[in-house]
Order: sequence, then C-alpha cells, then structure tokens
Amino acid sequence: MATRSWWGWGNVQDAVTGQERDALTKRVAALLPGADLTVHEAPDPASLTIPKPRVAPPDSLAGLASDDPIDRVTHGHGQAFRDVVRCLLGRVEHVPDLVLRPRTDHDVVDILDWCTDAGIAVVPFGGGTSVVGGVELRCASEYSGTVALDLGRLDQVLEIDRTSRAARIQAGILGPALEATLRPHGLTLRHFPQSFEFSSLGGWLATRAGGHYATLYTHIDDMVESMRVVTPAGISESRRLPGSGAGPSPDRMFLGSEGILGVITEAWMRLQDRPRWRSGASVLFDDYDRAVAATRAIAQSGLYPTNCRLLDPVEAFINAGTATAGGVLVLGFESADHPVDESMRRVVEICADHGGSIPDGIRATDSAESAARPESAARPGAADTWRSAFLRMPYQRDALAAQSMIVETFETACTWDRFDALRAAVASSATEAFQTLGVPGVLTCRFTHVYPDGPAPYFGVYAAGRWGQTVEQWDEIKAAVSDAIEKSGATITHHHAVGRDHRRWYDRQRPDPFAAALRAAKATLDPAGILNPGVLIDPSPPT
Amino acid sequence: MATRSWWGWGNVQDAVTGQERDALTKRVAALLPGADLTVHEAPDPASLTIPKPRVAPPDSLAGLASDDPIDRVTHGHGQAFRDVVRCLLGRVEHVPDLVLRPRTDHDVVDILDWCTDAGIAVVPFGGGTSVVGGVELRCASEYSGTVALDLGRLDQVLEIDRTSRAARIQAGILGPALEATLRPHGLTLRHFPQSFEFSSLGGWLATRAGGHYATLYTHIDDMVESMRVVTPAGISESRRLPGSGAGPSPDRMFLGSEGILGVITEAWMRLQDRPRWRSGASVLFDDYDRAVAATRAIAQSGLYPTNCRLLDPVEAFINAGTATAGGVLVLGFESADHPVDESMRRVVEICADHGGSIPDGIRATDSAESAARPESAARPGAADTWRSAFLRMPYQRDALAAQSMIVETFETACTWDRFDALRAAVASSATEAFQTLGVPGVLTCRFTHVYPDGPAPYFGVYAAGRWGQTVEQWDEIKAAVSDAIEKSGATITHHHAVGRDHRRWYDRQRPDPFAAALRAAKATLDPAGILNPGVLIDPSPPT
Repeated sequence: MATRSWWGWGNVQDAVTGQERDALTKRVAALLPGADLTVHEAPDPASLTIPKPRVAPPDSLAGLASDDPIDRVTHGHGQAFRDVVRCLLGRVEHVPDLVLRPRTDHDVVDILDWCTDAGIAVVPFGGGTSVVGGVELRCASEYSGTVALDLGRLDQVLEIDRTSRAARIQAGILGPALEATLRPHGLTLRHFPQSFEFSSLGGWLATRAGGHYATLYTHIDDMVESMRVVTPAGISESRRLPGSGAGPSPDRMFLGSEGILGVITEAWMRLQDRPRWRSGASVLFDDYDRAVAATRAIAQSGLYPTNCRLLDPVEAFINAGTATAGGVLVLGFESADHPVDESMRRVVEICADHGGSIPDGIRATDSAESAARPESAARPGAADTWRSAFLRMPYQRDALAAQSMIVETFETACTWDRFDALRAAVASSATEAFQTLGVPGVLTCRFTHVYPDGPAPYFGVYAAGRWGQTVEQWDEIKAAVSDAIEKSGATITHHHAVGRDHRRWYDRQRPDPFAAALRAAKATLDPAGILNPGVLIDPSPPT
Repeated sequence: MATRSWWGWGNVQDAVTGQERDALTKRVAALLPGADLTVHEAPDPASLTIPKPRVAPPDSLAGLASDDPIDRVTHGHGQAFRDVVRCLLGRVEHVPDLVLRPRTDHDVVDILDWCTDAGIAVVPFGGGTSVVGGVELRCASEYSGTVALDLGRLDQVLEIDRTSRAARIQAGILGPALEATLRPHGLTLRHFPQSFEFSSLGGWLATRAGGHYATLYTHIDDMVESMRVVTPAGISESRRLPGSGAGPSPDRMFLGSEGILGVITEAWMRLQDRPRWRSGASVLFDDYDRAVAATRAIAQSGLYPTNCRLLDPVEAFINAGTATAGGVLVLGFESADHPVDESMRRVVEICADHGGSIPDGIRATDSAESAARPESAARPGAADTWRSAFLRMPYQRDALAAQSMIVETFETACTWDRFDALRAAVASSATEAFQTLGVPGVLTCRFTHVYPDGPAPYFGVYAAGRWGQTVEQWDEIKAAVSDAIEKSGATITHHHAVGRDHRRWYDRQRPDPFAAALRAAKATLDPAGILNPGVLIDPSPPT
C-alpha cells in the first residue's frame, strides 16, 4: 500500500533513493561543480508545531470532517518547490482548521452554507498538486476559520455515452482511476499532465490544465461538454453540447476560475478512442533558430502532431541525454482510425528543409500488429521511456530540493514574432538573478505545446542555493523572470494557473474591466467572499 | 455601383428577377401545389411613416450622426424572415432616433459617455445581418432615445504579423474587404458564414458566428488571439496570446456577448495560409441512419474535413437537385501544406463501410498545377457552384417571402445520442404547426458543422403562408419547434446567436447562476444599462 508523502511529491515508496539518487547527484555535480549537495531530511511530522483548530464542524457535518494534524498540514500547501522546501525546513504555514470530505453534491451545498453563515474560508482541494499557491490560504486571520474542501470521495465515473464518446465524471477522481475506468470501454480522456498520477479532474478544470496533446487539444478546456458547479448562490449546470453559440460560454467562466466562484463537482468530458497507430521521431538540429523555424512550420502545417516538443540544447543534454548544437524536436502522431506514417513523413520533410536530421529514424507502431508479436509489444518505446522520465521529474525535483538545489519552472506562451526576444529576456533576467544571489545556475527551455500563432515555452531553472535560504532565493529569481515574461508580452501562465504566486503579474496582464466583471460575478455567486480568497482577485472577507 | 436594399438582403441589383424568379417559382409550385405565389412588391420607402428623432446629438458628435429616415429604418432591423416581411408590409418598427458612425475608438468612448449621461440606449451595429432580432431595440420607450452605433467606418486591417499568421483588424470591416486585404499576403481568415458579403468581423465576434470549417475551427471564437472592447466603464484589451491558462478567458466573456457588455472595436485574428490542395466528393446514401452513422464516424476519425455537410433527402432534392433515399454527404479537404488525397480516400472508405457511394468520384485540385493548366482553372468546381448557391440563398428567401412563402431556419447542436430523438421532435412539432395553421409545408435538415460528440443540425422550413399573416404564422412555427429543440436537450442556437428572438428558450437553457453572474458583469461594465437592452438578459434601464 502506497503512503503519500506529507511534505513532498507523491508516494513515500517512490522517492528518489540509492543508486538513482547517486546518479542524479553526480549529474548535478557535473553541471554545477562546487554545489553543496548534502542531503537534508524532512523533520519528523510529530515534531511540527501545528496550531489547534479554531472552529469545529456542526454535528450535521461532523462525519465529513477531519482535524487530524497531519491531514490538515498536507491540505495547507501545494507541490511547488517553495512548498516542498518549507516543509523540509519544518516551516508549516497556513494549516487549515479542518479538512472536510463531502460524499455528495448535497454535502458540498451544506458545507458552503455553513461556511457562508459562519464566515469560514473554503479552499476547494482536488489532488493538492498546485504549484502556484492555489490551495494555500494566506489570509486566514480575516476569517473565523478555514476549511480545505477535499473532493477525493467524489471519484466516480457516473455515466458513459459510447455513441457521443463522452462520460459524466465526478471532479475528485484522479488520473489513473479515471483512465482505468474508461479503458474497458476502449475510451480515454488522453489528458496526461505531469501531475497525472495525483491530480484530479476538478483540479484540471479549475486551473485550465495542459495535457497530452502538443497541438490542437492542448488545454482541458476543449474537452469539456458541460460542467456542474456548486456555488454558494446555487448550482450551475450547463447543458451537454458539442458546440453552441448561445451567449458567452458558461463553462468558460468556470474554467480557470480556480475555486473562487464555486466548487466543480462533475463534468461531462469528451473522450477519445484508444489510439492504435503511432509514429514517433527525434529530430536533431545544429542551429536552434532553424529548429524553432521548423517547429513553427509544423505548427502551421495543419498536421497536428500529438507530440511536438522542442528541447533546447541544454534541456536536451540534461533531460534527454543528447548532445546537439541546436536542440532536439520530439515528434509523435497517434490515431485510432488510420495509419499516421504519411503525416510523420511530411513533418520529417519539413524538418529536413530546416536542417534537421533523424539519426534514429522513425518509430512506427500498430497496436493490433504489435499485439500479435509479443516480443515487440514487450519492448518499451522511446515515448514510454520519456513518459516515465517525465512522471519521475517531480520526485527528482524533491530529491534535489533536499540537497539545497533550486529546481523550478516558468511556463508561458507568446506569439512566434516575440519568442526570440522573450527567450533572451528570460535568459538575461535569470542570469542576472543567479549572479546577484551568488548561486551558480543554468536555464533550460522546451516547448510543451505549440500553436499556429506561437509556442508555449517552458523554462527550467537549476541553481545551487544555500540551505535554509533557497525559498527566498527562488522567490527572487521568480520575481525577476516573471517581470521579464510579463514585459515581453507573454502570459504569466500557460497551464499552471495563477493561484497566489502569479497574482502580481496576472494583475498586470488581465484587462481591468474584465477583472471588475470577474469581481462582480464573484460577489454574486459567493456573496460572503468565502471561496479560495486571494486567488485571481483580492479577498473580500465578510465584515 | 451597388445599392443596398432598404427592406431585404444585400444589393438591389442582385435581387431575384426574371428567369431566376420564374424557375424558383416553378420549383416551389411543384413542391407545394396550390400555393398562392403572387409577387408582392415592397412599398415606396417615401410612403413609410417614420417617427421623428427624439434626441439630437451634441455638437461634438454631430459630424458622426445621421438622422436620415431611410438610414434610420435600415438600422432598426436585421435580416430575419420576419424582418424582411414586416418591411414588405410597410410595418417599419423600432426605428432608432439616430445613426452614429464613429471613426475611432475615441469616438466610441465619446458616444458611450454621451448616451450613458443622457439615458440613451445604444445598439452596436455591424453589417446588420442579424436573424435573431439582435439589432432591433424593442423597449425604446424606457430610454430617452435610441442610437444605432454603426461601426462601418472602422474597416481597416491595421497590422499583419506574417510570422505568427495573425492580423489586427477593425471590427467594422466586412468579409470581402477583409479577404481582399489579406490575399496579397497569401493569407486568409477563412471565415465564410452565409452572410459573408454583408456581415462584419465585430458582428461575427459578438455573436460567435459559425463559418467555413465543418470541423475543428467551426466558430470564430477559436480564431481570436485578442480583442479590444470599449465598455462604458473603460477599454478592455486582452493580450495577444496563442494560448493561456491565466484565469477565465477574458475574450470568452466578450465572445457571444452580443453588444450588451461593450463595443468590440478591433481584434487580433489568427489567419491561415491560402489553401493549395483541395479534394471534394459527394457521397450518396440509401439509408439516412447509415448516412448519419458514417458522418459520426468521420467526425470521430481525427481527419477533420473542411466540409462535412450531410443533406437529408429533402434538402438534397431541393438544394442540390439530387434524388436519394438516404441523403448526400458533401465532403471536402483543403491544405496549404500537403496533398489531401489520403484523408479523402479514408473518409470515402468510411462512407463505403456504411453503404455510401460516390458516383461522380473524387474531385482533387492542386492550385499550382491548375494555374499551369488554364482550361482546368477556368472550370468552376462543384464546391464553387455550391458556394454560389449558398450565398444566393438569402436573395431567394426574400423572393419567396414576397410570394407569401414562409422560408426560415432553425439551427442547433446536440450530442450524437440525442440526434434521432431531436430530429423526430422537430419534425413532429413542425408538422403539427403546419397543420394547425393550415399552411402546407416541408422541413429539411442538413448538418452545417459536426463535432466528435455531436452534429449541428440546420433545419429549413418551406411553407405556403397567407399574405399579410406570414410573420405571425412563422412566429407560431418558431415557438413550436423551439420548444421541441429546448426540450430535446439541444441548444437554441449553434451560430445565429440569441438576440431577442431566442430569449425565451435561452433563458431555460443557460444556468441561472451564470445568468446572475452575467447580469452582475453587465451592471459593472454598463452601469446605466444602455447597451443593447433586452438581448441575452432583461433590460435594466436607468431609473
């Protein structure tokens, strides 16, 4: 039985140890010679000072409530680098008074009623994997209490419509359980964010998560047929529709609302048939500008590869073990309906036009054929290897965080005409911050998603910090680079959400009249201002 | 020089006359024997009784204002069947007091300021092609005056970003001028609603118009990079982004807002390269259920045809002159990057699996090749023929409206599992209404757009009404069928918008908490309640 870590990512049993830790430490030492990579252990949770709950549930809700100290601690933070390090340092902050676990929509209504009446702040909590302070209430003193509303018991697939390829799904279900339920029906949501194993459907919807597809269906938004949201002012349920033009989309108001307007309890989601044909290739470039141009041409080709992830030379070296002067473009196609060789042939041709080469050739598979040849089915493909590594990254991040490393990301999106300037601005602001802080560091860049009009660059920071100071050091780097992103005309977040950590830059990015409209919408749906205060807009606690 | 009709669609010179009228009349007589097809002419506009303006513009806005009676009349209605017939009957209603034509955003700000202060209702007016009462203010008496804000002078393409394939475009530009400006750059918006010739970018955005693409990019929404909207509370300008996850999308709040939140003055729009390769085919079916199943399989195949329009047997007979027992599926692919034969081959195979046949074969063209062979370039393809007929339909609608015919449409969308029941419900409600009214009529159905999870069916009504009563007869048919659509779980509009004509059913469809949030947003952005009162939500005039 797996045990969830109280301080870091995922399961205790899956933490980086032994040989994996040694190898990781060696790689980092080679990259940043002189770094102090002493391993610091997390404190015994029994030693933590955890404030007593300020409120007790009414009898009617007592069966849903937990005041267990560690339960409360794990519901008081997300999984950002700064969250993990603060736990490692024993800095347990913003612990909610109670964790409430509703079993039905009706329970959610009752909880919101109680909290509205009592002036208690409510933080909707899915998988708790926010990396932007989305589940960490920082203004508890302005409320009579704080509650983490954990949706984990609302975890069922309620209905499957095979004809329309859609399912009605409760918001608290986590990625693996969802896919396991759909698999016997030949269906899949195909939404695989890095947090997949521990994040929930409701969390994906509330934060406009980005997933599996590098093109076309990048955000969870496009897979939503309808949503059910419990607000303090009533339940909002939109109609199941494949498309509509009836006024502004109700779903689009709740998508990205990050828990400030209501609690998403279920959604009808559009599904896919499970893919049968796949094709993949890794294209090597000598020149990064030409690699970017090739990626842009592919994004504008109308071919819609499933995978189209350009790793810059540093990223390719660190995370794919490939030495190039211009980076690696990881390409993939998949289909449940038809072979994808022709599409792959064409994108490889586009790459060749821009100087790209594929020394390892194209890897094509047909599930039906490989099922008939067990030896090939048993051999994990490069895509699987990458996916395993991809899902392993958060564990490695935690291991390095415990070794005084600053390991974090910035993700954004911009139009193609602005990308060169954006990358230069991010690089120079990061470098300057490293120097000011005296922390040797490197910056990597990959595209997680690409659009016809621009890429979604994902920057990684690896810097050797000083134990006990890495949270503050990271905060300074974060501020410097976020300023550069905002000033470059890019978005402060492409798929990690705004939460509380991105508020300063989000406030500069979103149009003021829209913010005024959003505040008005919130005041109507959440008149007592109890829902996730401080996220997206300023808190307006009951007076 | 073309002259716009004051009472009906498009240009006076293009109206249906002579041989075209004779042929049309014969076709209808064959379809509905016994119909009285006497042609009724529109009255002389000089004979109309038009109320005097109640307000005069301040000196600062006088240069933008027109109080010409016919100018005002043409800005007081859209182009629905009921609009055209009322004009033919000389029933000129809801004439605005003034038409104002801003030249700049600043003019729009000044106009909104004046109207806010003076309690004057403002109806933003693009091309005036609304078919849902979107530009017809019906509560003028609650305001001190009414103004049609005609955006026709804001008609420029301001900037083109070839790298990102996007352009900054003013909202008042009409379809042909926009495409003509983009053509020398090798670019196209590829948004061709039936109203294309006379509708504007701003109108498309405000109403979430549906266009050229039968799959994937069906609505204008998906082509929006950013928008600029002048509201009474300030200008809202979103950032140019290819994708973002920073809170609920500001653009999605204004898309479909139908002029109640602000005046869209410009937008950055995503463009396409002009297609080079095209392939088309018409697939004939003996069985409609199998034709629907084939269309669904194609919609779920991930092949994304540009054209995928299933005509039912009646629609195929009336509008494509093809006799089938199961209907005709019109298929097309296009690409600027690669040949599309393989995709066409696969969808034809899917059709064959469902009993479809293509007696005329596949028509493939390569623009580069056909340019080298002038004889083939000169031959108009079937797609061009269909497009001409498609753009000609509103003129024919007007001709028939003047012959006592009731000619109108219902458009909707639903999930695949509900389509059979929806079609049956629409057919029985229409038939019952025809019988109750004693008007012989037929109902047709085609899919304008298809999604993996459902089609967008478009129903056509052709009924022989009684002169002088066809507006009221239509209103009864409309109410009966709209009830059936609403009760079937479909949307009251897929791409014609809500306006005032769809309000009753829209109000049942949208979630109440969303409506409350929308009213709150409007109260914030338009505190005096002057913008397009009665559309989407109830008017809240100044008190």
